[in-house]
Amino acid sequence: MQAGKPILYSYFRSSCSWRVRIALALKGIDYETVPINLIKDGGQQLAIIEYLEETRPTPRLLPQDPKKRASVRMISDLIAGGIQPLQNLSVLKQVREEMQLTWAQNAITSGFNALEQILQSTAGIYCVGDEVTMADLCLVPQVANAERFKVDLTPYPTISSINKRLLVLEAFQVSHPCRQPDTPTELRA
Amino acid sequence: MQAGKPILYSYFRSSCSWRVRIALALKGIDYETVPINLIKDGGQQLAIIEYLEETRPTPRLLPQDPKKRASVRMISDLIAGGIQPLQNLSVLKQVREEMQLTWAQNAITSGFNALEQILQSTAGIYCVGDEVTMADLCLVPQVANAERFKVDLTPYPTISSINKRLLVLEAFQVSHPCRQPDTPTELRA
Repeated sequence: MQAGKPILYSYFRSSCSWRVRIALALKGIDYETVPINLIKDGGQQLAIIEYLEETRPTPRLLPQDPKKRASVRMISDLIAGGIQPLQNLSVLKQVREEMQLTWAQNAITSGFNALEQILQSTAGIYCVGDEVTMADLCLVPQVANAERFKVDLTPYPTISSINKRLLVLEAFQVSHPCRQPDTPTELRA
Repeated sequence: MQAGKPILYSYFRSSCSWRVRIALALKGIDYETVPINLIKDGGQQLAIIEYLEETRPTPRLLPQDPKKRASVRMISDLIAGGIQPLQNLSVLKQVREEMQLTWAQNAITSGFNALEQILQSTAGIYCVGDEVTMADLCLVPQVANAERFKVDLTPYPTISSINKRLLVLEAFQVSHPCRQPDTPTELRA
């Protein structure tokens, strides 16, 4: 391992890890992955993204305008603080097994109902305007979680179309859970 | 109402609203409160605090040093994204009534176990060093929630002592749930 090369403690399936992997790819930062099979995870990885933004400002993941920055953070916090924590593994394990899928679906749909409305006023090509921002790093991993939990995405046309436009970008592809060092063979693509 | 005076849609008991009220008090921003009896709340109010920090930089709520800023955000996200969303009203209502207290206590103690350890390496007088930061705005309302849910704070001496030092500051007192326009008479102090 090269001296000074950052280490990302990552779990292929974790949406929190994936957010950070996208940020690292967008900023062109080479890193070492140390796979961690997470028992529980949280929203804390946004602190890493803000740190990357401050120490490696190009390309920006936050717009220059304070109101647009607030929109980006509102969307990011809605996903990372309002949706993801309620449907992650450590929480689901505390719910009766036959209720787990419904619990996760409820958490995601009530969050997506709010998100779809917000995006209708903030979105351009991506979540806020036409540049990729921290909000997009949060969106794609959360939509993947929604798909895993079989949430019907038909009521969310704005979320779905932004997600499709993001998934073709290289940073979102190289960071995808199906292409990580700890991805099990049967889930690779 | 004075033109241009900001409006805070607030609920006296919400820890998310309280965080923002502390930030407004610290920055000396006069505002109008519009009470909202929240059915559910989330961690989203951190976007407001970041917006305030960018548009009213004095006094700082984030340290200048990027590593210290990352510590502040890590602590803030742990509380606002890792603890509070799991013990808020909308989630508790989905848990069987006889399990609600245990659920909330578990969410808080597993978060506080991590937080106590982090603070042991970051704290000075307050959460990160000797200046009040965004992390402190998150800490005090969360400790109040812990007390409401009868969590034993003995295992968390660092959390408890920082909380005590913060509660004597004016910004934390004027913003306290017991002194808001929508605080019911029996809860006023």
